[in-house]
Amino acid sequence: MPHIQLEDGVPGILGPMKFSPKTAEPLNALANALLLADEGLSRGERELIGAYVSSQNDCFFCQTIHGAVASAYYDDEDWSFMQRVKTNYRESALPDKMKALLNIAGSVQKGGKHVTEAQILAAREAGADDRDIHDTVLIAAAFCMFNRYVDGLATTAPTNPAIYKARAENIVRKGYSGDSPYEPYE
Amino acid sequence: MPHIQLEDGVPGILGPMKFSPKTAEPLNALANALLLADEGLSRGERELIGAYVSSQNDCFFCQTIHGAVASAYYDDEDWSFMQRVKTNYRESALPDKMKALLNIAGSVQKGGKHVTEAQILAAREAGADDRDIHDTVLIAAAFCMFNRYVDGLATTAPTNPAIYKARAENIVRKGYSGDSPYEPYE
Repeated sequence: MPHIQLEDGVPGILGPMKFSPKTAEPLNALANALLLADEGLSRGERELIGAYVSSQNDCFFCQTIHGAVASAYYDDEDWSFMQRVKTNYRESALPDKMKALLNIAGSVQKGGKHVTEAQILAAREAGADDRDIHDTVLIAAAFCMFNRYVDGLATTAPTNPAIYKARAENIVRKGYSGDSPYEPYE
Repeated sequence: MPHIQLEDGVPGILGPMKFSPKTAEPLNALANALLLADEGLSRGERELIGAYVSSQNDCFFCQTIHGAVASAYYDDEDWSFMQRVKTNYRESALPDKMKALLNIAGSVQKGGKHVTEAQILAAREAGADDRDIHDTVLIAAAFCMFNRYVDGLATTAPTNPAIYKARAENIVRKGYSGDSPYEPYE
């Protein structure tokens, strides 16, 4: 049961967002600015970083929905690629640049000061530029917020993957603050 | 030295915000929505939670600037009250409600799942309502992002307290996305 009274049938972050529309607006704007950007990292790569950090934070709702969105971008129909990224990205088919950026994201998840010069250098040698490094750090940091918001209020989450797949298609199409950000889960 | 090329003389979070105006806008909007709200928790209480979480995350820039803002609201001229809150809030002059909310904020800092039913119950018994609990969790979560953004990019920060005091007065007057959010530090 959530720690505060949230509307029934509104799972994950959508419950507290409906409870507090004034803060939902900048949160959705931030998600759009970070995840639907087309400069530098692709939308799939951005979602991948968010899903990975959410899995490191053990946030079921966030890692499932953002994993589903990343899988939609990567044509990863059965989620096996995303599963590999979450559990062992170093052995995945990701390019070296993304592996180096996920390494940085993993350090940000532990705390900002865990990021090392060596990690930054490795990312640059793999082709990352300042914009890629900036966006990786901020996406990872933002998911440390989203994950804590979702789990710190003990929100509920559906377990049926089909629900996340349908929602992911909606996010790919309309973003995080489209006309109906609070569409009920079926 | 910061991990990416940031403008000289623009310290803390202001450096990456200037590097990336598109993400700075929702970040400032979120700070305003969370910290300059007048429903439920006071502005001083909101800043106090942010400064406390920043100190738990060992983020020098954030704990100093938000501590300075909280001190401005609390007429804590020599910062001794804020210092007490950071190091041992349980023995501070704070009311029980704020102590219970800082206890929740401290758990959010560790991770969303660290928040317990007992902590929520204690906060309610001390007078906190759903809005107070929601805002505490989101403020604490947001500072886990801001702190990681600041330290994950290894930004620099001035050490002279007078600089933070001047900046704090500016924030109290104009908020986090006023006309001149990037005014240079002197």
